[in-house]
Amino acid sequence: MPEHTAASRLRLSGLCFLLQILNILLFAVFVRYSPEGSPGPCPPQLNCSRRNQDSGFQQPRFQDVHVQVLLSFGLLVAFLSRYGAGSAAISILITAFAIQWAVFIQGMFYFFLNGKIYVGAQSMVSADFCTAAVLISIGAVLGRVSPVQMLLLALLEVTLCTLNEYILLSLMGVRDSGRSLTVHTFGAYFGLMVSRVLYQPHKDKRKREEQRDKGHQTDVFAVVGTIYLWIFWPSFTSTTTVHHNAENWAVLNTYFSLAASTMSTFILSPLLYEETTPRMVQIQDATLAGMAMMGMAGEMLVTPFGALIAGFLVGLISPLGFRFFTPVLHSRLKIQDTCGVHNTHGLPGILGALLGTLLTLLATADTYGYRLELVFPLVAQGSRTVTDQALMQLGALPLTLLLATLGGGLTGAVLKIKVLRCSPDAQNKENAVFREVPEEGSDPSANGKEELGISTLV
Amino acid sequence: MPEHTAASRLRLSGLCFLLQILNILLFAVFVRYSPEGSPGPCPPQLNCSRRNQDSGFQQPRFQDVHVQVLLSFGLLVAFLSRYGAGSAAISILITAFAIQWAVFIQGMFYFFLNGKIYVGAQSMVSADFCTAAVLISIGAVLGRVSPVQMLLLALLEVTLCTLNEYILLSLMGVRDSGRSLTVHTFGAYFGLMVSRVLYQPHKDKRKREEQRDKGHQTDVFAVVGTIYLWIFWPSFTSTTTVHHNAENWAVLNTYFSLAASTMSTFILSPLLYEETTPRMVQIQDATLAGMAMMGMAGEMLVTPFGALIAGFLVGLISPLGFRFFTPVLHSRLKIQDTCGVHNTHGLPGILGALLGTLLTLLATADTYGYRLELVFPLVAQGSRTVTDQALMQLGALPLTLLLATLGGGLTGAVLKIKVLRCSPDAQNKENAVFREVPEEGSDPSANGKEELGISTLV
Amino acid sequence: MPEHTAASRLRLSGLCFLLQILNILLFAVFVRYSPEGSPGPCPPQLNCSRRNQDSGFQQPRFQDVHVQVLLSFGLLVAFLSRYGAGSAAISILITAFAIQWAVFIQGMFYFFLNGKIYVGAQSMVSADFCTAAVLISIGAVLGRVSPVQMLLLALLEVTLCTLNEYILLSLMGVRDSGRSLTVHTFGAYFGLMVSRVLYQPHKDKRKREEQRDKGHQTDVFAVVGTIYLWIFWPSFTSTTTVHHNAENWAVLNTYFSLAASTMSTFILSPLLYEETTPRMVQIQDATLAGMAMMGMAGEMLVTPFGALIAGFLVGLISPLGFRFFTPVLHSRLKIQDTCGVHNTHGLPGILGALLGTLLTLLATADTYGYRLELVFPLVAQGSRTVTDQALMQLGALPLTLLLATLGGGLTGAVLKIKVLRCSPDAQNKENAVFREVPEEGSDPSANGKEELGISTLV
Repeated sequence: MPEHTAASRLRLSGLCFLLQILNILLFAVFVRYSPEGSPGPCPPQLNCSRRNQDSGFQQPRFQDVHVQVLLSFGLLVAFLSRYGAGSAAISILITAFAIQWAVFIQGMFYFFLNGKIYVGAQSMVSADFCTAAVLISIGAVLGRVSPVQMLLLALLEVTLCTLNEYILLSLMGVRDSGRSLTVHTFGAYFGLMVSRVLYQPHKDKRKREEQRDKGHQTDVFAVVGTIYLWIFWPSFTSTTTVHHNAENWAVLNTYFSLAASTMSTFILSPLLYEETTPRMVQIQDATLAGMAMMGMAGEMLVTPFGALIAGFLVGLISPLGFRFFTPVLHSRLKIQDTCGVHNTHGLPGILGALLGTLLTLLATADTYGYRLELVFPLVAQGSRTVTDQALMQLGALPLTLLLATLGGGLTGAVLKIKVLRCSPDAQNKENAVFREVPEEGSDPSANGKEELGISTLV
Repeated sequence: MPEHTAASRLRLSGLCFLLQILNILLFAVFVRYSPEGSPGPCPPQLNCSRRNQDSGFQQPRFQDVHVQVLLSFGLLVAFLSRYGAGSAAISILITAFAIQWAVFIQGMFYFFLNGKIYVGAQSMVSADFCTAAVLISIGAVLGRVSPVQMLLLALLEVTLCTLNEYILLSLMGVRDSGRSLTVHTFGAYFGLMVSRVLYQPHKDKRKREEQRDKGHQTDVFAVVGTIYLWIFWPSFTSTTTVHHNAENWAVLNTYFSLAASTMSTFILSPLLYEETTPRMVQIQDATLAGMAMMGMAGEMLVTPFGALIAGFLVGLISPLGFRFFTPVLHSRLKIQDTCGVHNTHGLPGILGALLGTLLTLLATADTYGYRLELVFPLVAQGSRTVTDQALMQLGALPLTLLLATLGGGLTGAVLKIKVLRCSPDAQNKENAVFREVPEEGSDPSANGKEELGISTLV
Repeated sequence: MPEHTAASRLRLSGLCFLLQILNILLFAVFVRYSPEGSPGPCPPQLNCSRRNQDSGFQQPRFQDVHVQVLLSFGLLVAFLSRYGAGSAAISILITAFAIQWAVFIQGMFYFFLNGKIYVGAQSMVSADFCTAAVLISIGAVLGRVSPVQMLLLALLEVTLCTLNEYILLSLMGVRDSGRSLTVHTFGAYFGLMVSRVLYQPHKDKRKREEQRDKGHQTDVFAVVGTIYLWIFWPSFTSTTTVHHNAENWAVLNTYFSLAASTMSTFILSPLLYEETTPRMVQIQDATLAGMAMMGMAGEMLVTPFGALIAGFLVGLISPLGFRFFTPVLHSRLKIQDTCGVHNTHGLPGILGALLGTLLTLLATADTYGYRLELVFPLVAQGSRTVTDQALMQLGALPLTLLLATLGGGLTGAVLKIKVLRCSPDAQNKENAVFREVPEEGSDPSANGKEELGISTLV
């Protein structure tokens, strides 16, 4: 077995080496800083709001997105307490690779100009969005794939996610400032499909006990995650909205949605579970759901109570999904959803898209005023009616689902081939090391490490 | 007893439901986004500094306040290590409700315009201030009230706190940019009065051992809290100051005050306790005190060493308060102060108000220069002499104390009624669940959970 | 022994008192706010970029630096898990003192104007840089010096660090925006020299076991540290760069360097150690190295792949340094490097300086365009050729090393005298209290506290 481990060790090491060299070469050949320094040639999906702003304004935004990707999503990924520090290391590896790769791929789509890609802070921001989708997907398969497989998953998903984003935002002119579709929905269903393809029945047992542990140990995570989501996500949602005003509405709508969805967790969980106060994990899930919900609709809502109602409803739906839908997903569809990304990203993302469509239909010049041209430039220019825009928004949903599931299936198939390459032993060893606590409960020291692992990503 | 628990579970769930529906209805009827998007009709107490600024500048401020409310105050509330994750969940519930409620109530006072309330980012900021006061009060009664009672406390305190703020800032034209009076002093004495009314002798024993535990386990909290306070509070203090320059002085004064109060903790604690280095809890208390001290005076101090001296003195007073005053408070006045909010918010708030009054007296056109009209507009306009302004500042103190104690007494009485409604058993059960560790020390697993609970709010 | 403890307690308390009074007096005599409020008279080394910007832009920067100093460096200092909360308290004490002291000392060098020092936010930022250097040095001697000694170390190092900075940036006109030399290199070698002078063979045993523990327990720290470094350091590096554009390049270069150095950790550690995934500590070290590397070169690199290559190489060098150089350092040169600051700050800082020199040589008007006058004003003005500038950059390195080692030797000698003053018993007692866990492994409760201590600085 040692040689197995050695093999797996070297496989990861070698793959990292190859990918990094690849990135360096690609960057050397193609990537340059955009002449005017930042923000660089304006990608359609970022609406170039910042172009006209002092970049001092842009900087904090930029950081918020990083906080998102590294911190909150990291927390999300590290959800299973037992993967504590291990999954942190891996999620940082994935982030480190995916950001470079996404800067290149997205540059190919958006910033390609006579043989060179001109990048700026913009590129980094949209690269972060891609990384977020990747981390969501990994949240669905966490604990059943090796680091090597995760890297390959990132390699493929970044490409497909960018393709989907390009089609939606650039070709179809869909508005999705908070990425309800291109990040949440795509990432969730991509990951679920991969999970389906990699389905291994004999992993069920461990899976279930992880579910059990979740409640006990990840409270710590969850509190941290929730707080950071509250603090930073509203900016995340509104990073790419057009204009200060529109933006402020997106921020406020998101906050109201958060508050309401949190309340509804406290309403529902006592009825679903035998607890007075919900576990923090549930609060975090509700928070995530309330945010994914506001992704597309955030900048379109013109009344605060709309945000309250939306958050209130999604805050009720998400726990119900965990209680009743996840088991079905697992038993009937043979899809294991390690971190429950379907209830926190997939479903709310879809609902957000539908809400966005509805709001697009209701958008009129007098309710929006001058904001109409900020939120729906094509409509304001008269090159497209509100109904067409709404149809586009609606059509984007099935398209995203299609691309996500196809891409997920494809990726899953590729990963399966890889798995064949390494013997199950090595596979387990690898997971073991990765999981850093082979057997739980058996020895206290391991538990000790677990507890440490827990506050890990704080 | 199970039916008791069920009853209490459903009572919390039902109350949340009612309050959320109430909020939604009130918002639907009254609340609209202010036409120009953000910042909305300018409330007197916010001096509309941001109006004239790019809102890119406003955004980070806004977040700092959230960091404050959710993180630092959350930490403060979660002070008793044993309430770890439990109190985190509750403080997030309180925040989620109080913010919505405060947006409405404050809107009624400040933003009400022909039948509608027009809200913007401003409203959210002042709503956060209210929430901060609520969390301070809860810090005083934590562990002796149920979540249901906390919600009712928030319901009442938000209203009274806004009333007090309205009288002080709008009617009397008092300057209190860092909220020494309207948040720190009001919140502390409101909470202490509630604690007095709810006094239960038989809780003393547990109370004391909590005090003992504090030293051991909340160091973790305290470090985190201290660091975040250092990072974010200076902005918090200066969120509502008039002008860039004035603002920068407020920030710097606060930092200097922090540094000095931290030093004086290291001076005093070795003399008061048998330790070389003070426990982090004491450092955090000193930090909080140093900040509450700078609340009102922050923007008025024109020399750095003034901030150093003020911080130095309050850093000496706060530990002395813990050592000698808290016991008196407890034994003589029968007031239990779970998180010691009197020494960290109440007393320093009063001192800050007195310092502010003194500085107002000393304010002259040539020391302040053009800043005079920024800090004391009324004085600069000549519609009020410096002495009148100082009298107003001074008069605001007893008024705040009066409103806080009356309001606290009233609230305490209401909560007592509520308590009667639920049987002591259910009460304890509720607390038990809320506290999430019924008996400590008895079983290691519980302690394990506690330790987890600890890094909870990080 | 008790009287020893009492003695040591009172010595720390008394020293704090004296230093604080000293600061107050010095501030009272010399320090005033700069008339125009912020940013104050422009120090050469800060290029006064912010002068022309709205200070809304400045505020978040200012905070980032604080996050750096208090959080990331705090984490760095608290690296040895067993010093958990204890070292947190001390590092906050050091910060509280060093910031005041640095504001005064730096003011004497830069802001002194007819008998008064006029300070603003600028002063606070450069004071933070000094504090960072002090914390790095303490990282090298942590666990072998008492709080009292640390305070004296800070007292001396702040002065010498400012002297070095003044010579480099003001007199020689060296560009070092990210402080590769003046913070990283100076701090590291200063601390290593102090460590050499204070070398105590009999401490080796404990030292080694700490090294062993590191892997187990500081993962928690390390994750947090890494994440915060990723989030905040790019701004830290670019706090003082001249211009939005230049600045954005510095930020992006740093991110790319981070991503690459993280990848190379995953490449190397499986070969050096028997692990598939590197320990988080190693990832943090690589992150730190990647950042120190970009300190000087960050704003000079004009192509992204340059940053990728630099990060990639330094990410390979740092782990090799830990594996092969640290033992040599310890056995041959008798230098104990508690937190391995040589591999994370010293060596990368030197490499960064060399890279910066190389880039300066390559700087031409057409590659830099208008940025030339921003990055190399003297060259752009024609008062200095690129070669002269490069020679200056190169000459700054040995000069910094000389000043650092001389200053470190001097400081070490002074601390030794101090040590003689207090008996070894008191010394140990002090360390014990400071370390807050006299015997490890013996009692579970202590370990419990340790574990708490761990998530301490999160």
